[in-house]
Amino acid sequence: MSPQKYLRYFGLNSLFGTQRTKEILSVNPTVLPHREEATHVEVTVYDYDSANIQVHHFNNVSPCEKFRKDGRITWINIEGLRKSDVETICTTYDIHPLLIEDILSINQRPKMDEVEGVLFCLLNMLFYNDQKKTVETEQISIALGKDFVISFQEDAHRDVFDLLRSRLNMSNSKIRQRTADYLLYSMLDLIVDNYFIVMERLGEQIEMVEEEVIRRSNTKSLARINQLRKELIVLKRNLAPVRDLISGIIRSESDLLDDRTTKYFKDVYDHIMQAYDLGENYRDIVTGMQDLYINNVNLKLNEVMKVMAIVTCLLAPATVIGGIFGMNFEVIPYAHHKWGFYFAVGCMLIIPIWMLWVFRRRGWF
Amino acid sequence: MSPQKYLRYFGLNSLFGTQRTKEILSVNPTVLPHREEATHVEVTVYDYDSANIQVHHFNNVSPCEKFRKDGRITWINIEGLRKSDVETICTTYDIHPLLIEDILSINQRPKMDEVEGVLFCLLNMLFYNDQKKTVETEQISIALGKDFVISFQEDAHRDVFDLLRSRLNMSNSKIRQRTADYLLYSMLDLIVDNYFIVMERLGEQIEMVEEEVIRRSNTKSLARINQLRKELIVLKRNLAPVRDLISGIIRSESDLLDDRTTKYFKDVYDHIMQAYDLGENYRDIVTGMQDLYINNVNLKLNEVMKVMAIVTCLLAPATVIGGIFGMNFEVIPYAHHKWGFYFAVGCMLIIPIWMLWVFRRRGWF
Amino acid sequence: MSPQKYLRYFGLNSLFGTQRTKEILSVNPTVLPHREEATHVEVTVYDYDSANIQVHHFNNVSPCEKFRKDGRITWINIEGLRKSDVETICTTYDIHPLLIEDILSINQRPKMDEVEGVLFCLLNMLFYNDQKKTVETEQISIALGKDFVISFQEDAHRDVFDLLRSRLNMSNSKIRQRTADYLLYSMLDLIVDNYFIVMERLGEQIEMVEEEVIRRSNTKSLARINQLRKELIVLKRNLAPVRDLISGIIRSESDLLDDRTTKYFKDVYDHIMQAYDLGENYRDIVTGMQDLYINNVNLKLNEVMKVMAIVTCLLAPATVIGGIFGMNFEVIPYAHHKWGFYFAVGCMLIIPIWMLWVFRRRGWF
Amino acid sequence: MSPQKYLRYFGLNSLFGTQRTKEILSVNPTVLPHREEATHVEVTVYDYDSANIQVHHFNNVSPCEKFRKDGRITWINIEGLRKSDVETICTTYDIHPLLIEDILSINQRPKMDEVEGVLFCLLNMLFYNDQKKTVETEQISIALGKDFVISFQEDAHRDVFDLLRSRLNMSNSKIRQRTADYLLYSMLDLIVDNYFIVMERLGEQIEMVEEEVIRRSNTKSLARINQLRKELIVLKRNLAPVRDLISGIIRSESDLLDDRTTKYFKDVYDHIMQAYDLGENYRDIVTGMQDLYINNVNLKLNEVMKVMAIVTCLLAPATVIGGIFGMNFEVIPYAHHKWGFYFAVGCMLIIPIWMLWVFRRRGWF
Amino acid sequence: MSPQKYLRYFGLNSLFGTQRTKEILSVNPTVLPHREEATHVEVTVYDYDSANIQVHHFNNVSPCEKFRKDGRITWINIEGLRKSDVETICTTYDIHPLLIEDILSINQRPKMDEVEGVLFCLLNMLFYNDQKKTVETEQISIALGKDFVISFQEDAHRDVFDLLRSRLNMSNSKIRQRTADYLLYSMLDLIVDNYFIVMERLGEQIEMVEEEVIRRSNTKSLARINQLRKELIVLKRNLAPVRDLISGIIRSESDLLDDRTTKYFKDVYDHIMQAYDLGENYRDIVTGMQDLYINNVNLKLNEVMKVMAIVTCLLAPATVIGGIFGMNFEVIPYAHHKWGFYFAVGCMLIIPIWMLWVFRRRGWF
Repeated sequence: MSPQKYLRYFGLNSLFGTQRTKEILSVNPTVLPHREEATHVEVTVYDYDSANIQVHHFNNVSPCEKFRKDGRITWINIEGLRKSDVETICTTYDIHPLLIEDILSINQRPKMDEVEGVLFCLLNMLFYNDQKKTVETEQISIALGKDFVISFQEDAHRDVFDLLRSRLNMSNSKIRQRTADYLLYSMLDLIVDNYFIVMERLGEQIEMVEEEVIRRSNTKSLARINQLRKELIVLKRNLAPVRDLISGIIRSESDLLDDRTTKYFKDVYDHIMQAYDLGENYRDIVTGMQDLYINNVNLKLNEVMKVMAIVTCLLAPATVIGGIFGMNFEVIPYAHHKWGFYFAVGCMLIIPIWMLWVFRRRGWF
Repeated sequence: MSPQKYLRYFGLNSLFGTQRTKEILSVNPTVLPHREEATHVEVTVYDYDSANIQVHHFNNVSPCEKFRKDGRITWINIEGLRKSDVETICTTYDIHPLLIEDILSINQRPKMDEVEGVLFCLLNMLFYNDQKKTVETEQISIALGKDFVISFQEDAHRDVFDLLRSRLNMSNSKIRQRTADYLLYSMLDLIVDNYFIVMERLGEQIEMVEEEVIRRSNTKSLARINQLRKELIVLKRNLAPVRDLISGIIRSESDLLDDRTTKYFKDVYDHIMQAYDLGENYRDIVTGMQDLYINNVNLKLNEVMKVMAIVTCLLAPATVIGGIFGMNFEVIPYAHHKWGFYFAVGCMLIIPIWMLWVFRRRGWF
Repeated sequence: MSPQKYLRYFGLNSLFGTQRTKEILSVNPTVLPHREEATHVEVTVYDYDSANIQVHHFNNVSPCEKFRKDGRITWINIEGLRKSDVETICTTYDIHPLLIEDILSINQRPKMDEVEGVLFCLLNMLFYNDQKKTVETEQISIALGKDFVISFQEDAHRDVFDLLRSRLNMSNSKIRQRTADYLLYSMLDLIVDNYFIVMERLGEQIEMVEEEVIRRSNTKSLARINQLRKELIVLKRNLAPVRDLISGIIRSESDLLDDRTTKYFKDVYDHIMQAYDLGENYRDIVTGMQDLYINNVNLKLNEVMKVMAIVTCLLAPATVIGGIFGMNFEVIPYAHHKWGFYFAVGCMLIIPIWMLWVFRRRGWF
Repeated sequence: MSPQKYLRYFGLNSLFGTQRTKEILSVNPTVLPHREEATHVEVTVYDYDSANIQVHHFNNVSPCEKFRKDGRITWINIEGLRKSDVETICTTYDIHPLLIEDILSINQRPKMDEVEGVLFCLLNMLFYNDQKKTVETEQISIALGKDFVISFQEDAHRDVFDLLRSRLNMSNSKIRQRTADYLLYSMLDLIVDNYFIVMERLGEQIEMVEEEVIRRSNTKSLARINQLRKELIVLKRNLAPVRDLISGIIRSESDLLDDRTTKYFKDVYDHIMQAYDLGENYRDIVTGMQDLYINNVNLKLNEVMKVMAIVTCLLAPATVIGGIFGMNFEVIPYAHHKWGFYFAVGCMLIIPIWMLWVFRRRGWF
Repeated sequence: MSPQKYLRYFGLNSLFGTQRTKEILSVNPTVLPHREEATHVEVTVYDYDSANIQVHHFNNVSPCEKFRKDGRITWINIEGLRKSDVETICTTYDIHPLLIEDILSINQRPKMDEVEGVLFCLLNMLFYNDQKKTVETEQISIALGKDFVISFQEDAHRDVFDLLRSRLNMSNSKIRQRTADYLLYSMLDLIVDNYFIVMERLGEQIEMVEEEVIRRSNTKSLARINQLRKELIVLKRNLAPVRDLISGIIRSESDLLDDRTTKYFKDVYDHIMQAYDLGENYRDIVTGMQDLYINNVNLKLNEVMKVMAIVTCLLAPATVIGGIFGMNFEVIPYAHHKWGFYFAVGCMLIIPIWMLWVFRRRGWF
């Protein structure tokens, strides 16, 4: 069967599909109109100090203004992006218009910036899609100001902050005792920690593919290796810039960052460095797997060649002897002898057996 | 057919042509005479402040002198390069003679420089030629001075500044409120944003080639992969120096650059960094495609070998048995038996069927 | 046999197993609960100055408080990690809570940090497991404070500090004359020196595999090469960060570090640099081995092809001549000649001999 | 034919020769005696200021002393190196003895140095030898002092300074208006510009080889690719150090360098950077060509295998059917039938035609 | 023959031996006891100033004390390392105990250090062993103090300082006029210059192997390539750290180093940089050779396949025609015809000749 038919036959079209390539390559951060307006926006406000915490839920951002200068730390988490809402909240909290563009854009490279008293981080949360076996990204923008943190998420249905929410509700948790930058740290920490969970799933995939390469080494294996490589590209695209982002925060001399919090950011930095190293290890192992795959394909070819060599060697004496005694000469020695036939057939058997014995000694089988 | 004939037969000569290699390698920035004088020069002057804007069209640069010190911001866009015109305008606006050489040269590496009160950027606009499937470059030089921006383009028929023109006509647009460096930013932003459009088209090509590699993996596929690699060289050649150019502007401490504009240049920098990363991803994916191609070619060879092995195995018993009973001995067992012939033919059929069953179990088919 | 069966037959499943991949990839430093509480904790306290030394053994950390401010240098070595114990001792010795998390976590990247008057190092001791032929790691955390060093080990059964213990008992040893940072140096020195022992064992493995590749070059060889590569990943993962760790100590301007000790740390740095270089050499040599393996596999294929070519050439004249004289025409020349048969058989013999002689001259055998 | 014979037959010995390898590898800058004394030395002195210029020709350096302190700029160009001459002129012009060694040595790495009031540059002019298709180097040393430039060339017959000479004769040329460092700039500019001419010739070679790889892909092609790679090594060996040399001049704070000249050196730097980038592109393209070559060789093998498969398939039914009906049984069905023979031959024809049709559908041809 | 037998047969065991791998990988700088005590120690003292020089020979270091503070420059060259001697001399000349360890250790990475008024360099002299075709190293430690240089060599039988000794005896040589740091420079210069001699020998080896790859391309060639790669590892291991060593001296601000000597060290730096570049070129060329080797092996396989294809094509018509007319049908056309046999044989001849003509046109031969 041609490779194409193999694909159809084994249902591998999805494996070999170029759909994922399209998704990975279609990264144009400059095209604003592509982002669809969210139909539904969920705004959650955590307004707290070390003594009290209030949690509010809204459907738009207008009620958020009142928390602006109440002397307590305010975390406004906006899930679902609507242009008008983003603009309103940014105007209210004095966030620079350029950052609005960043928040609303898609496929941005992770980055941090400090613009007029606001420290701005844009990065991706990673999720592992078990069905498609792909790494999915969801962009999150976080603006840290004096006494407030505003986070913008694309999707209202999933994030990685559940642990943060439960800690906020404990009045004796460190997050309640500290300033707003500690909240930023907690969010980055949870995002980066989640990278490891995604990498663990990828690691499991790598194991499974390695198993498959060892067991079968068919076209499907290479497709899976290629698939893994694409996901590793997505991973790498997020790890290196986030590393720069966090080292940017550590080196920043912003007034918004308490000296005591720096060591926490260093801790996140250690984690992202380790994730980065691990990503490199993944690449090495996947490369090793591909070498193994190619080797196995070659070994299979060698095996086929060996069988052909054996069969050819079996044919050789039969053909030669059969040819000799099949000639229509009048005078053929032993042609009239009683045991002539058996002697000839005997030679046909003994010679290939002897050949096989020779090959065996040469270590071919 | 020999590879050469394949080419002729399938009309692949253009794919395998060395024409493109010639174009990519013929980069000699030092040879002035190669640049042909433009037959037609279009000069467009936008003379504006926040309140008013005037647009003038000329066929030569001499009328531009009057805008020199009118206290308003002047953008002179010159399309088509004629040595005398470039020299006139540069003398009028005190642009250093060395920069004149740069403006008139071709195939320059993108760079920025600050010479005697003029900040000079030279870079390429990229366009994707759908027919030749190549990335085309058009050199643009931009000189930023106090209250003026002069841009020099090679070709009068295409540029990427339409959006800029429409914004200039809006009196409330930011570009009208700000100083000349914001105009420079806007131009660089549009140029870099256009890179993504070119990359998107290349990305589509990559997808198509990947599809083809999966479906067919013939010589044409490799030709296309090689073609893509050459275009990626053109891309890389532009991305890395433009990155340096923009980071040079950010680090520059020129008086021409307003502090408030720096963050806009940082935004462009983020975009060019992302384009650069994406270019690396493209390379990775194209490398992966080549591996896939080579694997498919090998798999095809393996398939051919398998068929040969099968046919050889089918031949083996027929040849041996036919050889045995075809010998002209007088005494051949069963030769006179009624069912002898059918027994022999039966063996000829059963043995290869058994062999095929063995091979199947070994996972060869 | 299919590759899969080879594995079962030769007991290679362990060689090709994905178990080790799993271990190497499962690196998630953020998951605290994975660490099991040690059932047994051994605390050894060396309390010494240049004149006297006291050694105490405890089962928990509570008695350690009294050594806190006795004016002598105290080395508390804790083998086995129990959350409560770690927290107690850290509180007693004013070690920052963030470090407690690091101590208790697993699979951390080696790092050093200086937090509130405590210099903290976290790295791995390496051990070579002769049976599994793997590099095993055991995490060790060392906290250096004014007059004290606290080390936390995972496993009570093995460490690399025996030489240190015997030197501590000698009152004229340098370690007894110097401050606590010299003790830290001694520990790092012993850990890094042990890396070379592990690398020596890996080097022996590399030699053995090289021998095997030269002798046999079967699938087992590639499996072993892949195995080695994985261990080199573990090695590399430890060497580069430890290099950064030690250069961090050298560049640190902590009051805890005596100027006189810096040159000792530089010595450790030289060693880790050499280990790092050596690790690169290992990679080069393993890559060279893989090239050799692939070459040997190809040579074997060539050999098989040559034998097939020879046999085919032997068959050729026999088949052609046998076919010619086996045809059932009435008029066959020499058919009735006395020596016809022998002449034909002679041709069958002479032609392949002549062919072999030609091939030999062309250097095929 | 064995590869060796191919070489002799096709006159490829020069292509595959190790002569060029020898030349490229024999780089020992420390061996002074290798340099032969020039039999003939040509000294040309340009003594000029903005108003006047005098040109003198001598056969030795002794008359040069009088230009030492005449208040005008002196360019002494020495073609042909004789130890005594070099020492005399260096003593006269206070050039440090260590630089004398550099001037007289061969195969030096390009470098710049500033020793006691003299800025010294040593680099290579490149020439393309059309016959040998090699990149040839000629070492040039330039010493810039207060009011003088002395250049030392190996060979009296070729250099790249003709344009410079004609400009010197024009009293209104910039070179006549400026200080001696502008003369140095002009020389470096001409040398670097000449690199592009050499690269253009190499580029043409690359095109030709690419054409050949596409057309024929025989052993000769690989030899040419290897040849190109060696020349690219020569190129790279010169580009990277010259880049460092010029950036060294730009960063230098020597009094010899006028601030106004810096921007000219920056221009040279842009050119050498572009040459360096282009050299990397060359490498990429040559690597791509090698991939293409290997692919074409493999495709040829595949073609051969396909023909064998076809022929084997044609043989199969003939052999089987012929074997069946060639057996000497008494009872053979249809043996006595009138159309038996034609029926059998018909099968022999129809079956391989059917097989070919199947193969065609599988996309083998 | 199996690869193993090839080895034995052609005496290639030494080529393929793992002995050299063992030597290269057994680098453990931390194990002191491995160094055997020298049985014989030669101490040579050069005590000189610009006016006089005295040369003394001793069998131990005790008489060296008197030269300590005699106001003249003292070079003590110790050949053969005995622990007691090293300790004595170091104590006498106030060399730090840590350096004693370095001097006595083996397999150290080249490094420089400045400890308490002594500038210490440890590096390797390289020698090329013509018989084993390996790069041998001999460790040399040099301690530069105020008015003295002490050098420690492992082996009394060879070093690279003969030129230095003869220059010392010339009272007008620069070495006699300058301070002790110039002596250190001279030693490093001679050591580095000797690297080029070793590299020249390696270069000759590379040429020879290239010649062999072109001529024969058998297993021996690959063994030699692998051998060269290992030696290049030894080379690289020495070049990069020595580069760092010398740049360390240049950047050092030690009082021991005269400003006038810096430019000499810069000269050594240029040389070691060039050696480093050359080492990279060697690697490139060896990689190119390996590609050529693999290509040649593939071409040989292709040739074998072609011969098989030709022979198969020769067999095809003979088999088919012979099979057709060998069938035992009663009615065979032309069977009774006079020229039937000759017609059939003619077809057997003409068809393969036509096939060969077709193949030839397709460029297979």
